[in-house]
Amino acid sequence: MSDRLLEWFQNHPDEYISGEEISKEWNISRTAVWKQINRLRAKGYDFEAVPKLGYRLIQQPTRLDERTLLLKLKTSRFGRQLRIRSKTESTQNEALSWAKEGAQEGALVLAEEQTSGRGRQNRPWHSPPGKGIWMSMVLKPKIPLQFTPHLTLLTVVAVCRAIKRVVPVDVGIKWPNDLLVGERKICGILLESFAEDERLLSVIAGIGISVNLDEQDYPEGIKDKATSLKIASGKEIDRATLVAEILYEWEQLYQLYEEQGFGPVRTLWEAQSITIGRTISVNTPYGEVNGVAQGLDESGALVLLGRDGQYRKVFSGDVHFL
Amino acid sequence: MSDRLLEWFQNHPDEYISGEEISKEWNISRTAVWKQINRLRAKGYDFEAVPKLGYRLIQQPTRLDERTLLLKLKTSRFGRQLRIRSKTESTQNEALSWAKEGAQEGALVLAEEQTSGRGRQNRPWHSPPGKGIWMSMVLKPKIPLQFTPHLTLLTVVAVCRAIKRVVPVDVGIKWPNDLLVGERKICGILLESFAEDERLLSVIAGIGISVNLDEQDYPEGIKDKATSLKIASGKEIDRATLVAEILYEWEQLYQLYEEQGFGPVRTLWEAQSITIGRTISVNTPYGEVNGVAQGLDESGALVLLGRDGQYRKVFSGDVHFL
Repeated sequence: MSDRLLEWFQNHPDEYISGEEISKEWNISRTAVWKQINRLRAKGYDFEAVPKLGYRLIQQPTRLDERTLLLKLKTSRFGRQLRIRSKTESTQNEALSWAKEGAQEGALVLAEEQTSGRGRQNRPWHSPPGKGIWMSMVLKPKIPLQFTPHLTLLTVVAVCRAIKRVVPVDVGIKWPNDLLVGERKICGILLESFAEDERLLSVIAGIGISVNLDEQDYPEGIKDKATSLKIASGKEIDRATLVAEILYEWEQLYQLYEEQGFGPVRTLWEAQSITIGRTISVNTPYGEVNGVAQGLDESGALVLLGRDGQYRKVFSGDVHFL
Repeated sequence: MSDRLLEWFQNHPDEYISGEEISKEWNISRTAVWKQINRLRAKGYDFEAVPKLGYRLIQQPTRLDERTLLLKLKTSRFGRQLRIRSKTESTQNEALSWAKEGAQEGALVLAEEQTSGRGRQNRPWHSPPGKGIWMSMVLKPKIPLQFTPHLTLLTVVAVCRAIKRVVPVDVGIKWPNDLLVGERKICGILLESFAEDERLLSVIAGIGISVNLDEQDYPEGIKDKATSLKIASGKEIDRATLVAEILYEWEQLYQLYEEQGFGPVRTLWEAQSITIGRTISVNTPYGEVNGVAQGLDESGALVLLGRDGQYRKVFSGDVHFL
C-alpha cells in the first residue's frame, strides 16, 4: 500500500492530496492513511501538511546506491568491493566477518542505519537512518605491527581533507583521530587491528560521519557535543560524493605512505590539527598527563611539553582541552 | 569395555594376558581385543606384546590434572584461572572465546591434544595427545600498541629460562620467538593481538612445546626440523613441573617489564639468543634482507649489519641461517 501511495506522491510533485481523498482512492480508513504517511516519514520522506489542502511530498531520502557510488569512484581498490546495507548491526562487525571470509583490501561496507553502531571502548555510536556515512573498510597493510598507529592518523587526515573538498566547513583533527567543528564532534574513526606476533594481519577501519543530521536527530546526551556537516554548513550534502572523495583521498595517502613512510602523513596531520599548540590533558593508562601539545613523533605518539620543561610522549588516551 | 580391560592391566602391572584369555574373560571376539588394545595405545598407553605370553602394560600416560598443577603453581595471576581439556581444536581459539566471555589476565587453557593446532601464518601445529605442552594464555597488557612485539620477546625469554631450569638441554632463541636445540625446533610461540586504535585490548599467547615426543611421533615432513625435550635430554619430563616453572618465569618477567620497561627483557633475550652474531637472511614483506645479526633495538626489531656496512632494521619475517 505505502508503495502505491508513495508512487502517487512521486508522480505528482507539486500537488496536495487530502487524507479523505487518499482514503477513498485506495479504499482504506483515515487512520490507515495517517499510519502510511508516518511510515513514509520514518523512512526519510518529508510531507507538508496543510489544513484543507492535505499532504504534499516535499523531500525524498537520497539513498546510497551501489551504481551511483561506483560511478563516482576514482579509486582503483578502495570501495571496489562494495556492500551497501539498508540496516545492519554494525558495519565493523560485518566488515570483520567479510574479511574472515576472504574480502580483499579495500572491501567496503556501508549502511544507511546501524542498530548497534559502536565507537571506541564500546561506546554506542548514534547512527540514525539515511543521514550519515556509516562505513567500514578492510585493510591488509604490509607494515610492522609497530606502525599501526600511522594508519589511524592517515585515515583521519584523508577524511578531513575529503570533507574540506566537498563541504565549506572549518574542520580540524583532535588527537588522535576525532574530527571537530568548533568544539563539536562531526566524525569518529575506529581502527580495529588483528596481529600475529609482529605481523599485522588485518585492520577494520570504521568511519562515522554525521552528514545530514538535524538538531532534533541528536539524543539529549550528545546534543551539545556533536554536530553535523549540514548544521555546520547550512547545506544538505550528497553522501555518495563525499564517500567517493574520502575513498580517493584515503587511497592516495595510503599509497604515498607505502612509498614514503610516515613523514608526509605526519606533516599533513599536523597541518590539520587543532590539538597542537594547545594546553591539554590526556587520560592515559598510566595516569593523567598535562602539557602543551607539540606534535607527533615518528611512531605517531603525541609529544607534550609540561610546565616543568620536560617533554613527554603520549601513546594513547582521551584528550581534553584545558 | 576398554575401561574394564585397562583396570585389569593397571591392577596387574607385571602380568601378561593373552588375547585368548581376554577374549574369554570379557566374552568378546579376538578382533575386538585387538581393537581395544589399539584404542588404548592411541590414548598413550603402551603395551609389550610377547608371542604366547600376550600383552603387558608397560607405560601409562601422565595426565595434566588441575589439582596437581595448581599445587605446583608459584604465581599469583598466571594460570590461576585454569581450563584443562583432554582434547580441543585449538587452545588459541578456546582462550580467545574465553577472553571474549570475560576471562581475566592470566587465564590459561591447556590441552592434552589439539585437533587443529596452528602456528604462525596458519601453519598446522602437530600436537599429539599426552606428550606436549599445548597451551594459550590471556593477557591484557596496559601498554601502547607499538610495544606489542616486546611481549613476544618477553614470552620466549620466559619459556627458555624455565626449560633450562627443568631440563638439562642447550636451548636458544631464534629471532623473534622460536626455541631451538641445535638447529631443531623444540617450541613455537604465537601471540595473537587485538587492538582498538592505539590501544592494545588483549593478547592470546600460545605456547607449544614438544616435551615427551619420541622420534616416531613426528610425521615425515617435520622429523628433520623438530625435536623434543625428551629426545634432546634422554629423559621423560614432568609436564606439570615445566608448566608451573614457565608460568612463574613469565609472570616475574611480565612484572619486571611493567616496572622497568623493555631494557631488562632485551638483555635477557640477547643473552639466550642463537641469532646474534650469525649471518642470516630474513624474508620480510619488503623482500629479503641479509646481514650479521647485531641485536634488538628498543622496539624489538632485529638490527642487521649488511656487507655494505649499512645497518638495517627488520620488524618481521622468517630467519634463515646462512
